Amino acid sequence: MSEEGPSKSALKKAQKDAEKAARKAENAVKQAAQVYQAPVLTIDQLQTSTFGDLPLHQSNYQLDKLSPFPSEATAEPISFRAYLQNSRGTGKTFFAVLRQQSQTIQAVVFEDKDLIKYASSLSKESYVHVTGVIKQVEQPITSCTIQNLEVQITKIFALSRAQVLPLQIEDAQRPDSQLNENPALVRVGRDTLFDNRVIDLRTTTNNSIFKIRAKIQQEFTKFMVSRDFLQITTPKIIPGASEGGASVFNVSYFKNEACLAQSPQLYKQMAISGGFQKVFEVGPVFRAESSHTHRHLCEFTGLDLEMEIQDNYREVLVFLDSLMKSIFKNVLHDCESEIETVRKQFDMQMPEKLVWTETPVIIDFREGVKMLRESGFEQGDLDDLSTETERQLGKLVREKYGTDFYILDKFPMSIRPFYTMPDSQDENYSNSYDMFIRGQEICSGAQRIHNAEFLLEQLSKKQIPIEPLASYINAFKYGCPPHGGAGLGLERIIMLMLGIQDCRQCCLFPRTPERLTP
Amino acid sequence: MSEEGPSKSALKKAQKDAEKAARKAENAVKQAAQVYQAPVLTIDQLQTSTFGDLPLHQSNYQLDKLSPFPSEATAEPISFRAYLQNSRGTGKTFFAVLRQQSQTIQAVVFEDKDLIKYASSLSKESYVHVTGVIKQVEQPITSCTIQNLEVQITKIFALSRAQVLPLQIEDAQRPDSQLNENPALVRVGRDTLFDNRVIDLRTTTNNSIFKIRAKIQQEFTKFMVSRDFLQITTPKIIPGASEGGASVFNVSYFKNEACLAQSPQLYKQMAISGGFQKVFEVGPVFRAESSHTHRHLCEFTGLDLEMEIQDNYREVLVFLDSLMKSIFKNVLHDCESEIETVRKQFDMQMPEKLVWTETPVIIDFREGVKMLRESGFEQGDLDDLSTETERQLGKLVREKYGTDFYILDKFPMSIRPFYTMPDSQDENYSNSYDMFIRGQEICSGAQRIHNAEFLLEQLSKKQIPIEPLASYINAFKYGCPPHGGAGLGLERIIMLMLGIQDCRQCCLFPRTPERLTP
Repeated sequence: MSEEGPSKSALKKAQKDAEKAARKAENAVKQAAQVYQAPVLTIDQLQTSTFGDLPLHQSNYQLDKLSPFPSEATAEPISFRAYLQNSRGTGKTFFAVLRQQSQTIQAVVFEDKDLIKYASSLSKESYVHVTGVIKQVEQPITSCTIQNLEVQITKIFALSRAQVLPLQIEDAQRPDSQLNENPALVRVGRDTLFDNRVIDLRTTTNNSIFKIRAKIQQEFTKFMVSRDFLQITTPKIIPGASEGGASVFNVSYFKNEACLAQSPQLYKQMAISGGFQKVFEVGPVFRAESSHTHRHLCEFTGLDLEMEIQDNYREVLVFLDSLMKSIFKNVLHDCESEIETVRKQFDMQMPEKLVWTETPVIIDFREGVKMLRESGFEQGDLDDLSTETERQLGKLVREKYGTDFYILDKFPMSIRPFYTMPDSQDENYSNSYDMFIRGQEICSGAQRIHNAEFLLEQLSKKQIPIEPLASYINAFKYGCPPHGGAGLGLERIIMLMLGIQDCRQCCLFPRTPERLTP
Repeated sequence: MSEEGPSKSALKKAQKDAEKAARKAENAVKQAAQVYQAPVLTIDQLQTSTFGDLPLHQSNYQLDKLSPFPSEATAEPISFRAYLQNSRGTGKTFFAVLRQQSQTIQAVVFEDKDLIKYASSLSKESYVHVTGVIKQVEQPITSCTIQNLEVQITKIFALSRAQVLPLQIEDAQRPDSQLNENPALVRVGRDTLFDNRVIDLRTTTNNSIFKIRAKIQQEFTKFMVSRDFLQITTPKIIPGASEGGASVFNVSYFKNEACLAQSPQLYKQMAISGGFQKVFEVGPVFRAESSHTHRHLCEFTGLDLEMEIQDNYREVLVFLDSLMKSIFKNVLHDCESEIETVRKQFDMQMPEKLVWTETPVIIDFREGVKMLRESGFEQGDLDDLSTETERQLGKLVREKYGTDFYILDKFPMSIRPFYTMPDSQDENYSNSYDMFIRGQEICSGAQRIHNAEFLLEQLSKKQIPIEPLASYINAFKYGCPPHGGAGLGLERIIMLMLGIQDCRQCCLFPRTPERLTP
């Protein structure tokens, strides 16, 4: 959001006022509903009624055949189901916005007073069965996604009535620009949204985000399968920390203590030693990090891969580069309308469309350090990048190479995990890399050590106890191909591809240090 | 395995003898290797040598371009990599079996004494780089999967030498019939196999099982996507037990106690209330059951789905039926050679090929009870089935309907979870079902309660505390479509489709009450 909006106290007051107004409006609806006794239908009445609350659906009755959500004008009435997103009844007319997934359409009733009375009694977000003729309209209905059609309702039944909502759909998906212009508008706090995630998920924005998410996951899988990678599933309950002991969740496993896997790292490598050559996994990754940033989750979806190397770990880099570009291309193409929907809400925070080059941009860590220094940043030769220097380097790379996506290669050995293969020329560096989108890391990877003795040497250098890693180390005693791989974070990819500010929004029910529900 | 084999004590003695012999043989190889000093090459020597141990591969050298594993005769030598599964050197000749994934090929060296000496020093399961001409052979080589070709080795290099193996590949994949005929053969115990799973996974049998597993998972996903189901990911760390408190793993979540999800049940329903209409998930499911049977795992892969119902939950049954038949058909067709490989090892335990009928076979629970009673079994009207009665009913259904696959519908309400929709006519029964393959359950499902008040009634009837379920119950307060779904167990599907005896074999690194490693 822009920093130059209304003042904080003005905002606070406006929010309070708005909440009060919303409560008042809700109460009015509630009272109206209490005065009007909506008919509750019996199964016998269903065929002859044109409105009313349906009995609890126990698979014991049938209404008209359902059509898909309207997409064209019809001569005859059709029936479909929808959420009643919004409505307005004046006694003589009734207007409503009906929603299904990421589509909304206007519905109207004229004249039929009983029908209007009943329809007006329906609370927002009730799930309704509607019958009506779909008509072309002349003036585009700008408040709906379907702007050229409306439903002329002849029957309406509540399948499932909503109680008073803790937040309004319109408020949850109000464009940033509107919020910025008008301080009186309700701003729903993040906690309220996540506390009531089931309602929050119904916005056309969120519906679109989760369609894009599924698409990215499926494009990843499709690409891996097309390149003969075997899809595997590694255990999530494991005997010891896989990526260092600090940020691990502990589990009671019968009489033993166990951990939740911080990555499939050890097991995907063991699958390589098990003879599978190229493997991938899509699965949950658990990190007990007390981080409260926009890019941390305690449980996220990892896209992991590991492959045999023929001559050089650069084979993995080239593979990753083509993988990501295939995802970018297909997702941006196939999800055009979903991306448009997301952009409508986040119209002020969204950056320009993602750009990338055909040729892979792979930059040596030492070159990255040089670029940073030349632009005035301090950066130690063997120090890790910070969030700030990562962003700066992203900017510099975009200026120089015209890409939002690049790979930084040959990280210092001291800041990489024990299983990383050192560079053969300079053991201060390693055969390891990160991938970045818009200056933020989405992936870490490396050539791994495939030899048990050398692994033991590295463990001893890093003073890591070998006992909890025994079965992992053993895996490299019995002949193993040289191999490398990478782990990608799905939520970060979505966030950075779309330019959303917070990766928690890319997770159905996010887990953070403070949030374990819903 | 057949019950009429050699006596237990004879087996034990034979096993001891075999182990002794194996140790002796290994020691001999070891000693021979110690006497012969295999050359360890430097990078400079690589281009001029025809044999030797390669330096640790740090992406710092390149040998000949690699070809895929041989599949046809060649005029010129080609290079490829493989595990040295087995070898026999006599001084004048050297024979070996080379393996990659589920394929093996014979390799030979004649005359070149130095090459033979070196090749003979290579331990089993070393990973080698081989160059040679691929020749057609006249006599089929029955010990290999590629029977019409052999490799005439001109160069061989060890990329990664194996230490002495704790078990032999041949022993791990010996056909049941051979074991049954010859008590002197080594029988590798299940614990030894699982303790050394990385070696065990290398057998052509296991390589095939995991290809079939990936195929089933992908066919499931493909079918769901083709029917417009949205792929979702629900949290695995959740605040309370989702399927009853007894068999849940506890996790320390910062300052709170949490659980590992026993199913995505509550969350996939919340996604339906979130407006997604049809959702599915492939993910880990955790059950802290102290069960030690062939069909229980503490961590398995769940294939879950949930969908809006239009008129009747039978829509879900018909969908499940077509889903499973699509999986059966495509997997049995596309994995024919992998299934053949699995059958070769389990040649005595594997039942006939799976059969099913075009029309769905859906049997009412009451009808099932009647069939059981008529066949002489005792079965209470409202009692759950046991493993034994399930199997018996499977047999009866196969006899009557000619199918290994059927659905049992309308289970008694008392033995189903609280969120199950009761039957509208008889509240002793419910709108719920199980699917069976070969008389064993692979799936449970139901129409769910989509109304918060009715849900509270059921919880109170079952005396379940509502507090830990608050956010779940809330999800049905704000309008929700009627819906139903199912949860399938991937490992059980593989086990029963293939007719394998133990579902632990269908899991890369199985978790049981006693097994947390590797």
